[in-house]
Amino acid sequence: MSHHHPHTADAVLALDIGGTKLAAGVVTADGTTLAFAQCPSAVRDGPRAVLKRLFDLGRAVLGTAGAAPGDLRGTGIGCGGPLDSTAGVLLAPPHLPGWKDVPIVRLAEDAHGLPAVLDNDGTAGAAGEWRFGAGRGTRHLVYLTVSTGIGGGMVFDGRTYRGAAGNGGEPGHLTVRSDGHRPCRSCGRTGCLEAYASGTSIAERARAAVAEARAHGVATALADRDPLTAADVTAAVRAGDGVATAVWEETLDALGTGLVSLVNVFEPELVVLGGGVTRAGELLMEPLRRRVAERAMGPAAATVRLTTAAGGDQAGVLGAAAIAFERLPPR
Amino acid sequence: MSHHHPHTADAVLALDIGGTKLAAGVVTADGTTLAFAQCPSAVRDGPRAVLKRLFDLGRAVLGTAGAAPGDLRGTGIGCGGPLDSTAGVLLAPPHLPGWKDVPIVRLAEDAHGLPAVLDNDGTAGAAGEWRFGAGRGTRHLVYLTVSTGIGGGMVFDGRTYRGAAGNGGEPGHLTVRSDGHRPCRSCGRTGCLEAYASGTSIAERARAAVAEARAHGVATALADRDPLTAADVTAAVRAGDGVATAVWEETLDALGTGLVSLVNVFEPELVVLGGGVTRAGELLMEPLRRRVAERAMGPAAATVRLTTAAGGDQAGVLGAAAIAFERLPPR
Repeated sequence: MSHHHPHTADAVLALDIGGTKLAAGVVTADGTTLAFAQCPSAVRDGPRAVLKRLFDLGRAVLGTAGAAPGDLRGTGIGCGGPLDSTAGVLLAPPHLPGWKDVPIVRLAEDAHGLPAVLDNDGTAGAAGEWRFGAGRGTRHLVYLTVSTGIGGGMVFDGRTYRGAAGNGGEPGHLTVRSDGHRPCRSCGRTGCLEAYASGTSIAERARAAVAEARAHGVATALADRDPLTAADVTAAVRAGDGVATAVWEETLDALGTGLVSLVNVFEPELVVLGGGVTRAGELLMEPLRRRVAERAMGPAAATVRLTTAAGGDQAGVLGAAAIAFERLPPR
Repeated sequence: MSHHHPHTADAVLALDIGGTKLAAGVVTADGTTLAFAQCPSAVRDGPRAVLKRLFDLGRAVLGTAGAAPGDLRGTGIGCGGPLDSTAGVLLAPPHLPGWKDVPIVRLAEDAHGLPAVLDNDGTAGAAGEWRFGAGRGTRHLVYLTVSTGIGGGMVFDGRTYRGAAGNGGEPGHLTVRSDGHRPCRSCGRTGCLEAYASGTSIAERARAAVAEARAHGVATALADRDPLTAADVTAAVRAGDGVATAVWEETLDALGTGLVSLVNVFEPELVVLGGGVTRAGELLMEPLRRRVAERAMGPAAATVRLTTAAGGDQAGVLGAAAIAFERLPPR
């Protein structure tokens, strides 16, 4: 095997399997993306069709990057759980209906002729921010992604934490509202952080608040919005809308409670927040920093930093690349 | 230096600084306690007197074990935080009034002529259960001690987790009751696990429940008890007392919520519960196992085991010994 593309000599193929989109990239050891592509997941087409699209996407980025399989360390795959990261099997991810015990690592190895590893996408995201992003140079990092759902992961002493079978790190299922009646779509309990702070929850609670406002003759800018999204809520908060502000404050309280619990348990150097909801920027981060400073235990509150993720739209691919660099030996 | 006591050749001196009692031991690498001693802390005497008692206790167990300083790897010290485990300094532990920035590691090194290390006692407890106790042979362990307060620690991939400065692992300050108005004595917030499940909380809530029962003419076996302790509550639960049972159920709910959050975040192989409240045995463990099985996320709930600590009365000393074996090189 020739090495006529020396820049890919320590690179990996990274695959990110989301419920909405699939993404693939070729990423070097310093986090440079040599090629990147994505497409809709279209999960209704079933596992076989989605897997074909995923592996075609992988082949496409390998071609774009000019990388032959012999040039690459291997493939990292990030996907929502539950999964078995050691066996490389997706057990029954709720965002991929019909997928049951899919041996994704073996399938990817066959498709690309490369060794492959699998991790929970939140775990991979934590590894990506630690290796390439906002957490470079830290020892301890907690990563929280606030998106359709809430996921996350942890890096301890520079090592990604996986739990007993790769499903460790579900900060979305910290209880933050023992008085809360909103059921959590992912785990069925009530009071979960995810049920009170995900993008989905923000939009749902905003819709309920609009109906309530309408019933009481209260004006709100949110009343015109259909569909009503989390981004509409934050825009209305900036414009001083009272109904939107109440929904946002409830979101901040839930996130603040969850973060205080995480900071007390981990005393991390850094908490990295990613996911679509972080587009709210300082409207989100400043009140969360204040809540943590006021309410977390002394030493933890004094040392922890809260920042937004660096990964952006390529966060999934960078995470999948990071776990490949962590788990696969250099060629 | 001679080695005429070969059985102490790989042993450590272990010191445990509690608010109620001081304990010291000489412990071998396999967890055998060659000598053990304890005495009241009498913290009102101030730091100087307490430190003298502690180091005298250390010298006493070294003498009992027949160990010369040259025979030992060093000293492990466990104490409640906040502390700086790297610098070896106790910052301002609330259970040791008047102690401020005490360089305990340097003082212990001077007193015994041995290298010393310091860790939070919950962190040390986790290390002790992993190395010598209920967690032998596991990779991931979460340790929770339910006593006057609630402390704990974690071992990940066989390594004790310390956080940024040694204050990581405060599971007592997970929020479990967002509707709760009981202030937490350690951190000042409301809704903490410690405020709803520590031995102190059990006794306080039982006293309030007795007053309430009296006001409504409800009979309870707890009415006779003065002082009323957590052990009185569990005894009354076994006897079918309704007032005690309500207090106990609230305790189980708080502990169950905290454990579900911990299990979801860590997917640990094992959760070890220690501290005086675990003397309740299966009255405590069986309902907690049930709550975790019913409410934690699928894979985590399916794999996690819940068990009581093996350390018993020597748990503090075994924990301090474990961190010495982990952090100090063999001689």
